[in-house]
Amino acid sequence: MLMGEIPAGPLLSQIELPSDLRKLDKMQLQQVCNELRQFIIDSVSVNGGHFGASLGVVELSVALHYVMNTPYDQLVWDVGHQAYGHKILTGRRKVFHTNRKLNGISGFPKRDESEYDTFGVGHSSTSISAALGMAIASKLKGETDRQHIAVIGDGAMTAGLPFEAMNHAGVSNANILIILNDNNMSIDANVGALKEYLTDITTSHTYNKLRDDIWSLLGKLPYPEFQRDMASKLKESLKGAISKSSNLFEALGLRYFGPIDGHNVTKLVETLRDLRDIQGPKILHIKTVKGKGYKLAEEDQTLWHAPGIFDKITGKINKKVFDMPQAPKYQDVFGYSIIELAKANPKIMGITPAMPSGCSLKYMMEEMPDRALDVGIAEQHAVTLSAGLATQGMKVYCNIYSSFMQRAYDMVVHDVAIQNLPVIFCLDRAGLVGDDGGTHHGAYDLAYMRCIPNMIVSAPMNEQELRNLMYTAQLDETVNPFVIRYPRGQGVMPEWKTPFEKITIGQGRKIKDGKDLAILTIGHPGNFAVKACTELATEGIDAAHYDMRFVKPLDEAMLHEIGRKFSRVITVEDGTVVGGFGSAVLEFFNAHNYKPQVEILGIPDRIIEHGKPEEQHAECGFDTPAIVAASKLMMQTKAGLDVVHA
Amino acid sequence: MLMGEIPAGPLLSQIELPSDLRKLDKMQLQQVCNELRQFIIDSVSVNGGHFGASLGVVELSVALHYVMNTPYDQLVWDVGHQAYGHKILTGRRKVFHTNRKLNGISGFPKRDESEYDTFGVGHSSTSISAALGMAIASKLKGETDRQHIAVIGDGAMTAGLPFEAMNHAGVSNANILIILNDNNMSIDANVGALKEYLTDITTSHTYNKLRDDIWSLLGKLPYPEFQRDMASKLKESLKGAISKSSNLFEALGLRYFGPIDGHNVTKLVETLRDLRDIQGPKILHIKTVKGKGYKLAEEDQTLWHAPGIFDKITGKINKKVFDMPQAPKYQDVFGYSIIELAKANPKIMGITPAMPSGCSLKYMMEEMPDRALDVGIAEQHAVTLSAGLATQGMKVYCNIYSSFMQRAYDMVVHDVAIQNLPVIFCLDRAGLVGDDGGTHHGAYDLAYMRCIPNMIVSAPMNEQELRNLMYTAQLDETVNPFVIRYPRGQGVMPEWKTPFEKITIGQGRKIKDGKDLAILTIGHPGNFAVKACTELATEGIDAAHYDMRFVKPLDEAMLHEIGRKFSRVITVEDGTVVGGFGSAVLEFFNAHNYKPQVEILGIPDRIIEHGKPEEQHAECGFDTPAIVAASKLMMQTKAGLDVVHA
Repeated sequence: MLMGEIPAGPLLSQIELPSDLRKLDKMQLQQVCNELRQFIIDSVSVNGGHFGASLGVVELSVALHYVMNTPYDQLVWDVGHQAYGHKILTGRRKVFHTNRKLNGISGFPKRDESEYDTFGVGHSSTSISAALGMAIASKLKGETDRQHIAVIGDGAMTAGLPFEAMNHAGVSNANILIILNDNNMSIDANVGALKEYLTDITTSHTYNKLRDDIWSLLGKLPYPEFQRDMASKLKESLKGAISKSSNLFEALGLRYFGPIDGHNVTKLVETLRDLRDIQGPKILHIKTVKGKGYKLAEEDQTLWHAPGIFDKITGKINKKVFDMPQAPKYQDVFGYSIIELAKANPKIMGITPAMPSGCSLKYMMEEMPDRALDVGIAEQHAVTLSAGLATQGMKVYCNIYSSFMQRAYDMVVHDVAIQNLPVIFCLDRAGLVGDDGGTHHGAYDLAYMRCIPNMIVSAPMNEQELRNLMYTAQLDETVNPFVIRYPRGQGVMPEWKTPFEKITIGQGRKIKDGKDLAILTIGHPGNFAVKACTELATEGIDAAHYDMRFVKPLDEAMLHEIGRKFSRVITVEDGTVVGGFGSAVLEFFNAHNYKPQVEILGIPDRIIEHGKPEEQHAECGFDTPAIVAASKLMMQTKAGLDVVHA
Repeated sequence: MLMGEIPAGPLLSQIELPSDLRKLDKMQLQQVCNELRQFIIDSVSVNGGHFGASLGVVELSVALHYVMNTPYDQLVWDVGHQAYGHKILTGRRKVFHTNRKLNGISGFPKRDESEYDTFGVGHSSTSISAALGMAIASKLKGETDRQHIAVIGDGAMTAGLPFEAMNHAGVSNANILIILNDNNMSIDANVGALKEYLTDITTSHTYNKLRDDIWSLLGKLPYPEFQRDMASKLKESLKGAISKSSNLFEALGLRYFGPIDGHNVTKLVETLRDLRDIQGPKILHIKTVKGKGYKLAEEDQTLWHAPGIFDKITGKINKKVFDMPQAPKYQDVFGYSIIELAKANPKIMGITPAMPSGCSLKYMMEEMPDRALDVGIAEQHAVTLSAGLATQGMKVYCNIYSSFMQRAYDMVVHDVAIQNLPVIFCLDRAGLVGDDGGTHHGAYDLAYMRCIPNMIVSAPMNEQELRNLMYTAQLDETVNPFVIRYPRGQGVMPEWKTPFEKITIGQGRKIKDGKDLAILTIGHPGNFAVKACTELATEGIDAAHYDMRFVKPLDEAMLHEIGRKFSRVITVEDGTVVGGFGSAVLEFFNAHNYKPQVEILGIPDRIIEHGKPEEQHAECGFDTPAIVAASKLMMQTKAGLDVVHA
């Protein structure tokens, strides 16, 4: 066995690829499921990762690879964190312990990694569009036997994209099967009308019941000669209505099947075999339990979405034990501070698209349920709703992970910025996010936000700054859209609950004076620079350090001071070096004809893979050692005079 | 009367504000409608603008302002081009002839312009989210009598955002009325399953019919004692099913009313009065005819969406008459060239989200219907579908207006760029779009695209360049996502059908040598620079001109040449100066330690209002006179030595 490899049960250990699985008898599949479930528990308990979602689709993963001819038949797993079973069954069991680690396999399906991974899926709700594209391509190529399957949760269904895709699929003749994995959960509990509708479908007063009752009534009418015409006409009406209008999915032109028990592998196999032979767009509704088979995970599905390392026997989740008081997570500083602010200002509201736990708005949702709303996975709606609220004078903190904000970009431009509405965007998970990897980094926000007129774009260096920016953003004198972006994880101030103080918009802070070079930082990496300055001092280099706080508007007075005083400047950001903070500084220096040598440190122009944030900071070259090295190198050149045209 | 003011009929001329309208008797409303319709015809025929959409909602506009207490009650008009009647009834009749002109009123509702314009609406599909925000704010303020109304077309409904909003509205208790203005049209004919569903609702085999038939059957059963239990149980089932599941909107928790005739103003008034008294989220489905009341517009709804100036009697649309052969529109160069390419390369496909006429994909849709698809107003789906197609080796030209591409930003990042799929994005309407104004400018694309890894970002200076970029993008050796962005309107080459030639990716063109300064352009404004160079030459200034063609990757060899040779550089782009092409050039010069004086000409960091493109180019300062002026000013400074710290 490979170092770190997780042992597998007797059947699972014979399965390298789905072709091995297909050699088994159908009656053996339940045991494969049991072993696969145990393997996931064994692996995640020691290596961490996503947990509940993959446990919920163990039977589906086995059934799909058993029935379908993968990889020729194409599976797209929406929000890839449900795909651990798929990965384990498709050649990656022996390296599964490297999941989400530097140079290990990705926590999400990834095209580079396996031919079974047909589409990269980190963000939710993309699977139907992607699978439909594949299905249309197959149609054009004449591959009529090829299956195209999107597995999508009911949580992901609340986003607009699947609706757009179904609206197209329903009038296409493409061979696509949508499997609606209905478990009532996103990371947090699902919200919205669709959720209630899906619950309804499976209970009495609904479609299936209606259909059954009506057929039954018509069949039992005792006087068949009576009103034969009426009955016949009604039957026609019903057929049309039931097949086209009685069900939301059939209204969209999809043939609807289900709901069936998603933990009955035999039933799944039979159903999938039937569906394989039905051409055209169709949807299979299965009911599953997130965390299925691990009792604690079934009981607290949010906690066990991605619990970290835990004792699989006792269920005790390993919390780090610290010797000294710890700095809080930035998300919690947001979550607690918004409540303090909202108590003082009745206009304050909080909005999250399906991340109440992740962004810590859940505390306000508990305390002020009317003023803190989870709108489901619906970033576009979250932003335009916030704009609507802002027109009525509300001060809305719309908290969206930086990489998910990409999904609402037009709403930021069109509904907020052009109208100059003072919506407050709190972008959590900005910068490099660690083991979720490339799809989840908040790498582009400084660049894509600062190019929009009217925006204020800020990033706090620590907890106090975050609180003060949050405080400033809700003041009536602040009339612009206001972005506050901060990273995943901990800040630096154990005593974080500082009194609120107003910050002058567009004003930076001089952290340390110096004479040899100026280090300009934005946001959390300012802390790396503090340490770098200390190190540099021990080597006789006297670096000044400015925490700029705002990428837009820039602190022009401060930049004039820097331009006049320094011929060597280093900028540091946890965002892309293309068009970001460093570029903003260059634009200023150019406009005002300063000619310092400028070194821009940040995220390079490529996709940064998963790993630990520290590893990623080092790889990108903006951690403390990188700042020190860049400073020393710069001091070796005769600033402003050397011309290096490399 | 004001200069240019359009005369109004006897009733309409008494209406300055909705309060005047409300003084009239209900029986006079039809005449108001007639006069309003005539006013719109009179005005648009001489001043241009959007036509069919506003004609279709004349009765609705009158009924809403008659019944609702605007502006206290809040109307949001989706895709504001249907709001001419609203504008005319709310204080802007006398200035309506300035519609879409420089310093005149906007063609869309705009908050700055009137308190009756509750929300700026240029892009489609935002109205439900915005109105829901207003309704939630009213709820919090205790304004229970306040009405919040979103008027949205069935075309706009195919986008994901309204679905996200309805999913939220359906579980809110907010007082919102959605009016579904069902006319089967976007700018082009609507597509998708929802359209068919809506047609279905109003024809026989549907909800209403089903409901009627069943009640009728149950009522007519001759033996009431027979199977009373069964009948009673069925009735319960039906009640539940019909009220919750039988209709797509009721499935989402909205009370559904209609469909009713949207051209019967009396019926509309009665229905709206009834609905005003029903709290909570609800939807009224009205059927209208786009272009209603102007026969030609009813018959060719796409042509008459925004026909330009026309003879209102004969219906003859004024086409400009030219003395010499004219250059084609860029969109037509795209539309015809993709067919040429597709005939040679069977992998080529074309995708448009609801703009087949606007982007000229319609020609390919006619000639190769399997390979050119309109997916409806669904930019997100268009991009992820294209990504899915690209995984199967298809070469997809996904044509989306630059400002609408903002809506699919995450799909570009997450589904295309991170996976490095060679999707070809043709961004029409890039730069300044003229009379549509701020919401529609393609001002940010160079900035928001170039910060994404793996992207190729290009802009052609003319028709030949567009064709060659299109040709290059589909070659098998081109393995990256490829953006080609070009403006609205005409190019410069009457003889545009040049042979296809491969362009080396990242290679610019030297248009003219020179020694005094270098002018670097991207895209169509290169033509302004050509003229500027000629003018400068007459004044003794010898400017070099480089058409860079690519913002990413930059032509580094060319930039090294420029950096070595010139101390004065002017960059010109029809995009924002914040983080765009000019900034990319600055980044290069900084990284390689060149220190020329650089002047960045482009769209300044503010919202540019409507007007003619030439007016906007002049205002922004990157047309020929502006380039000449900037060049002359630059020549007055002693390059590289002057320090102007303004």
